[in-house]
Amino acid sequence: MNYRMISRVLGYVLLIIAALMLLPLICGLWYRENVLNFVITIGCTAVLGFAMTRVKPRSQDLFARDGFAIVGISWLLMSLLGALPFVISGDIPSYVDAVFETASGFTTTGASILNDIEGLTRSGLFWRSFTHWIGGMGMLVFLMAIMPMSGEHSMHIMRAEVPGPTVGKLVPRVKKTAMILYVIYLGLTVLEAILLLCGGMSFFDAILHAFATAGTGGFSTRGASIGAYGSAYIDIVITVFMILFGVNFNLYFLMLIGKFKDALKSEELHVYLGIIVSAAVIIAVLIAKIYGGFFHALRYSFFNVATVVSTTGFGNADFTQWPALAQAMLVAIMFMGGCAGSTGGGMKVSRIMVVFKSAFADISQMIFPRSVNVVRLDKRRVSSETVKACNTYFAIYMIALLLTTLLVSVDGFDVTTNFTAAVSCLSNIGPGLSLVGPAGNFAIFSDFSKIVMTVAMLLGRLEIYPLLVLVMPAMWRKK
Amino acid sequence: MNYRMISRVLGYVLLIIAALMLLPLICGLWYRENVLNFVITIGCTAVLGFAMTRVKPRSQDLFARDGFAIVGISWLLMSLLGALPFVISGDIPSYVDAVFETASGFTTTGASILNDIEGLTRSGLFWRSFTHWIGGMGMLVFLMAIMPMSGEHSMHIMRAEVPGPTVGKLVPRVKKTAMILYVIYLGLTVLEAILLLCGGMSFFDAILHAFATAGTGGFSTRGASIGAYGSAYIDIVITVFMILFGVNFNLYFLMLIGKFKDALKSEELHVYLGIIVSAAVIIAVLIAKIYGGFFHALRYSFFNVATVVSTTGFGNADFTQWPALAQAMLVAIMFMGGCAGSTGGGMKVSRIMVVFKSAFADISQMIFPRSVNVVRLDKRRVSSETVKACNTYFAIYMIALLLTTLLVSVDGFDVTTNFTAAVSCLSNIGPGLSLVGPAGNFAIFSDFSKIVMTVAMLLGRLEIYPLLVLVMPAMWRKK
Repeated sequence: MNYRMISRVLGYVLLIIAALMLLPLICGLWYRENVLNFVITIGCTAVLGFAMTRVKPRSQDLFARDGFAIVGISWLLMSLLGALPFVISGDIPSYVDAVFETASGFTTTGASILNDIEGLTRSGLFWRSFTHWIGGMGMLVFLMAIMPMSGEHSMHIMRAEVPGPTVGKLVPRVKKTAMILYVIYLGLTVLEAILLLCGGMSFFDAILHAFATAGTGGFSTRGASIGAYGSAYIDIVITVFMILFGVNFNLYFLMLIGKFKDALKSEELHVYLGIIVSAAVIIAVLIAKIYGGFFHALRYSFFNVATVVSTTGFGNADFTQWPALAQAMLVAIMFMGGCAGSTGGGMKVSRIMVVFKSAFADISQMIFPRSVNVVRLDKRRVSSETVKACNTYFAIYMIALLLTTLLVSVDGFDVTTNFTAAVSCLSNIGPGLSLVGPAGNFAIFSDFSKIVMTVAMLLGRLEIYPLLVLVMPAMWRKK
Repeated sequence: MNYRMISRVLGYVLLIIAALMLLPLICGLWYRENVLNFVITIGCTAVLGFAMTRVKPRSQDLFARDGFAIVGISWLLMSLLGALPFVISGDIPSYVDAVFETASGFTTTGASILNDIEGLTRSGLFWRSFTHWIGGMGMLVFLMAIMPMSGEHSMHIMRAEVPGPTVGKLVPRVKKTAMILYVIYLGLTVLEAILLLCGGMSFFDAILHAFATAGTGGFSTRGASIGAYGSAYIDIVITVFMILFGVNFNLYFLMLIGKFKDALKSEELHVYLGIIVSAAVIIAVLIAKIYGGFFHALRYSFFNVATVVSTTGFGNADFTQWPALAQAMLVAIMFMGGCAGSTGGGMKVSRIMVVFKSAFADISQMIFPRSVNVVRLDKRRVSSETVKACNTYFAIYMIALLLTTLLVSVDGFDVTTNFTAAVSCLSNIGPGLSLVGPAGNFAIFSDFSKIVMTVAMLLGRLEIYPLLVLVMPAMWRKK
């Protein structure tokens, strides 16, 4: 392990966090709030960060394990430090609660322990939603975009933070790839904010909801989430953008450089959209009675399928009141999540596709032992390492789900609450069913369970390995 | 596909079923019941079977796909024909219900749609429990034990029917291996029946409960299951035998030939017993209050952990009344099930071990890309094909679970009921939680859901492939 280099990169991460906190600070000043909480946090973070960047590394070499360690520790630090403003201002008095809320923000989960969202300070609300935007594309990707680092080494960091089975560079240089991703991200966010403004949202609400959609997070400025606006236009805009942010950003890059055909040929995109449309139509049929007709029900079914598949977690209806089949379908979609390389969570569409395809290839092999069965995606052969990694991830995800459910069960709530809370945290969605449905929240849990779910959210966002390796002894052993 | 040979083997299967039905017929005569139902069924089955054995195969060659087809079709036929006596006698008037109950018997699930078990005819009760015994070790394994067939070919059939990631021959000849398995099986069954007789059970009850334990099925002659006897001795005997029948039978063979040390060194055995003991102790702590102290609670915790881990499904307490954590632990254990090569269902301990070990090997590989990480079981290297097959099975199992849950949700019961009913059927356990807990049963479901769950039970018992391949077009295509 290159400890010195790790310390240096982590230092830069802290400096950027400090810089990014200037935005909520400005927001607080604008609304004439007490911003001492941000001043203190920025001060501490900046000093610590500056000290860590002063460590002189003997070499710039970074290996895969260093990449994992950097990403894992960064996200822990972000959650622990990012929670301070909430505690100091009294917005969220308990530190455990504040860390839960901040991790839920950065990991773009959107699960909340707040009972009175409207009671928060404006700067607190801003920071809460802004964490979604930072976490969505990733803090380290941002760092890659602005920091001069050699390509091969920074690729290890990027690979550890960007979700999905494989990470491709859009352009030969990592720095440029990261910049392009952030430009697309920013562009879509601004576009959504403008469209929401047109729908009559206030400037403050429009920006914060755009942040939360972009990161597929789901924190709202209202306790009743998007349902509070009661506007079909806003529902539709948010539905469309939730779906858009669940798409692999590489496709937007392909469109930007004029390769529309290539972008639209993506198998993962077809499956993603196919599942959204078919699930939304079936659910609309199931809930047609509740919402007075199939076409009116489409507004609610599309919104909630989009909120779950993109793992955003906004709400415009309480789906715990829907028929059992509709609920079961939503839970099934929760596992899957968005496309690889999007800001959406879950297991990722392409990974599920690889698991399915390899399973069917294996069965064919079993029937005709002499045939050769290759897994293909977008007509290209998927390497056996990737297939294996997808299957392994699938298994580890299920194990993590099982452990989270078991640990959360200590609080004694019903099985549906415990299980869907675990799925929701691990897939970075936000709401679950039963007590943690769209009408409930996570305040009911004990501190122990909140800590467990904080870890689960981080595991889900970082796709398990960066945190898991931190606790493996082999990681810290000297070779 | 060697259709003629398949027909011939299926014919023998039918003849054996007809022969085995003579036992409940004799039982009916003994209790002076109307046994016309068995006479008719035996007649039809024997005639059909005899006709099918008359087909002259051009060659004796059987390939893997033929093995799958034979096993898949056999089990379907067994369930469809085995249900007839219940319908004709009026014990279970609905054919869908009768097929559910029979499939639940053969697959050793033990899920019941009967509200009044004590109201059944004696011969009906006998047949119901006897299906467990037949299904536990497997109909085809029985056929292998008595039918002269060349080894290589019959191995394909055995591999398709015996649960677990790999099937080893105990002795070079398949026929002898099958015979040894059945001798051990019979021996343990007789021993248990004698011990139950000593505990004051009637002869009829002792034999039927021994059948149900041996197959790890769980049908009882009483509506209140083992709890009806209110005897600590009987609880303990049944607990011990449930655990014993969840152990790989190869270990008993090793013990029989004096290799005790080898048998006791099995890693799978250690994990299996370790999980039972630790889960039972933790649950005893959790339920100590309900049962007046830790030591008294052990009787209930051990019994219910054993019933779930061996996937038997007997009950001596209503665990839906236990704390949430205890329930969650039982559900977690449901997924795992017994050891490979036992009569227990679930995903099998060794398969879960391989999935875990390969996941950790992959993670090590990620940290140290140049290291070589091999999965070992019992100090021997597990082939990469077996590792892959375990991961694939894990994924397919989860997909099957998801689909079953979704389809069963149509009935509109709560999420916990639907989900645990699906787990319980797919893992061949019997009870689930909520409405399908030990105090409830499966009569509440619609015919559609009962058919879905019948298929799920067969998928679980045959480990999915033999039924799955039946519906794959590639299977029936001529090469």
